[in-house]
Amino acid sequence: MTFEYKLEKTCQDTKARVGEFSTPHGKVETPVFMPVGTKATVKTMTPEELREINAQIILGNTYHLYLRPGHELIEEAGGLHQFMNWDRPILTDSGGFQVFSLSDMNEITEEGVTFKSHLDGSEHFISPERSIEIQEALGADIIMAFDECPPYEADQDYVKDSLEMTTRWLERCIEQHQRQDQALFGIMQGGMYQELRKESARQIVEFDLPGYAIGGLSVGEPKEEMLEVLDYAPDLLPEGKPRYLMGVGTPFDLFEGVMRGVDMFDCVFPTRVARNGAVFTSQGRITIRNATYKRQFIPMDPECDCYVCQNYTRAYIRHLIKQKEVLGIRLTTYHNLYFLTNLMDNIRESIKNDEFLDYRAEFYQKYGIKQEKN
Amino acid sequence: MTFEYKLEKTCQDTKARVGEFSTPHGKVETPVFMPVGTKATVKTMTPEELREINAQIILGNTYHLYLRPGHELIEEAGGLHQFMNWDRPILTDSGGFQVFSLSDMNEITEEGVTFKSHLDGSEHFISPERSIEIQEALGADIIMAFDECPPYEADQDYVKDSLEMTTRWLERCIEQHQRQDQALFGIMQGGMYQELRKESARQIVEFDLPGYAIGGLSVGEPKEEMLEVLDYAPDLLPEGKPRYLMGVGTPFDLFEGVMRGVDMFDCVFPTRVARNGAVFTSQGRITIRNATYKRQFIPMDPECDCYVCQNYTRAYIRHLIKQKEVLGIRLTTYHNLYFLTNLMDNIRESIKNDEFLDYRAEFYQKYGIKQEKN
Repeated sequence: MTFEYKLEKTCQDTKARVGEFSTPHGKVETPVFMPVGTKATVKTMTPEELREINAQIILGNTYHLYLRPGHELIEEAGGLHQFMNWDRPILTDSGGFQVFSLSDMNEITEEGVTFKSHLDGSEHFISPERSIEIQEALGADIIMAFDECPPYEADQDYVKDSLEMTTRWLERCIEQHQRQDQALFGIMQGGMYQELRKESARQIVEFDLPGYAIGGLSVGEPKEEMLEVLDYAPDLLPEGKPRYLMGVGTPFDLFEGVMRGVDMFDCVFPTRVARNGAVFTSQGRITIRNATYKRQFIPMDPECDCYVCQNYTRAYIRHLIKQKEVLGIRLTTYHNLYFLTNLMDNIRESIKNDEFLDYRAEFYQKYGIKQEKN
Repeated sequence: MTFEYKLEKTCQDTKARVGEFSTPHGKVETPVFMPVGTKATVKTMTPEELREINAQIILGNTYHLYLRPGHELIEEAGGLHQFMNWDRPILTDSGGFQVFSLSDMNEITEEGVTFKSHLDGSEHFISPERSIEIQEALGADIIMAFDECPPYEADQDYVKDSLEMTTRWLERCIEQHQRQDQALFGIMQGGMYQELRKESARQIVEFDLPGYAIGGLSVGEPKEEMLEVLDYAPDLLPEGKPRYLMGVGTPFDLFEGVMRGVDMFDCVFPTRVARNGAVFTSQGRITIRNATYKRQFIPMDPECDCYVCQNYTRAYIRHLIKQKEVLGIRLTTYHNLYFLTNLMDNIRESIKNDEFLDYRAEFYQKYGIKQEKN
């Protein structure tokens, strides 16, 4: 079966699990971190470099691609894979989140969302049907249902009404969706309210979809609140389907999400901070722009075996970043993405060997993360 | 001998010639185009990519590196090769040209040049001795004498006095220069005046240096005037030494320079225009940003066998450039540099096979260059 999820092993001490999800463009080993390729490119990287760092699957943003260059053009190119020359799996979001967070204004009705482009102010309308239509044109392996993602401040009544509309929108997405070579994932909402999370999960699980996402987190809430929701939310979703936590991806988030049963992650954080010269190292995050690195002729992370750390020094990369040289942000981006994909490789290995908690403790200790709970 | 130039073959119909210049970091086959790596990086490119496109030697700018990150830091890193992780030959200029063209103000005396940094207005002084000191710290294989490059508008008296000072400066450079693993090239000046070019050449050739440059061209003069100077200038330099035409490098310039006996070229043009989306193709230069390429799902140059043209379409690259995505300027830069290094490979081959004029005629015809002479 094309979109089969095979659960291979669950950690004996935690809910962390290793599995494999099949797509038309190949298998994805989970848990997995997905680099974000907003505008049909993971910023600064070639597809070959993404392969080098073992990126198994990348994400494209429907909102951006719909506006520029337009989904019809990408369809004409043969789909997003061919357009950007990436032959491994792709996931596209529904456009909903960006409509709410980026567009100049919007009106949400049962029918869909009217908004003005953040680029030129032009007016657009996206409904569940339209989102699926666009995503079918883009041709990703995994596509997401069009949902409403309420802000952190939303009260319980709003969140309840919203999640129910999201379920009705999901039904319309399923109705619209025709392509057999795409898996449509549903999205659980419900904000920080356990009862509402349960209700949302109950409603969307009924559709027996090939995968499910946990939406509405990392929307401004304190980290502890996110973890509280993650303490129970993944369990509300079927064990036999992949669980995708949207928009989350620091090393801490990955460990804590995996430990609670999450399989898929995406986040612009590692690539965005890289462009400001912030890089992950096994000893914690450092800002390579800082004067302290000016004469350090050692790798960014002396323990890292990536191309960047094997070939360039802190002093050189600092010089490039300070001088706004493109090679600088290429190297920091490459390293940060490698750091996370490699971390995930290690996490999968540790789960297989029943050493996940040890690996986490060791990583946290070196990285300087205070370990709050087990 | 370390810096031997071996003249291998001279074209039977023109002064075009093929040779080989040995340096401590390997041999350079001439004629050669040298990509410019102003700030210890050929903009957007890794050293591996430079190797892929067969860049044999690159250029570094002494003025920029002296200001940022400073030559002492680069010396501490083990020299420019090690700092930027490039193990093939490097040439550094003397800093003179940038002092005159970039710095905020300057005073030229017999002793040297006082100028204010274009970055922070700080005052600096560079003399022939200082230029050599900096270039010894950078550690390039080929270093250039500190010269004055008068503007196109300079009158004959000024140019005459200037070239004589340049000769005295050359003598001081030779006096200062200690490193045996660096070849110091002298620079011919003399503006557009044949008598002064002869005089300059006569003076500098007396020092029996391992190579010579033709300076003071591409400083604003009409192309025909440059070609007029090139009709006789290379002949004023010894046949047994490489001849380097500074700051020149369109496809037309390369053909016309080679035809007149030039061996080495450098120019920021191919990389600078690439960042604005202008790319060389075998049918002439195109501006990939233009709307006409929006739906063209063919390579930038269908006849090109470079990585970019084998993997990406005009439509995709146009999208990236329009969206200011770094990958866009990576791909246009890569292609343009490949176009020139590959052109030079073909030119060398054509000289060896006594087909240079045929190759030039064929290239010009397709590229759309009106062939003025020969």
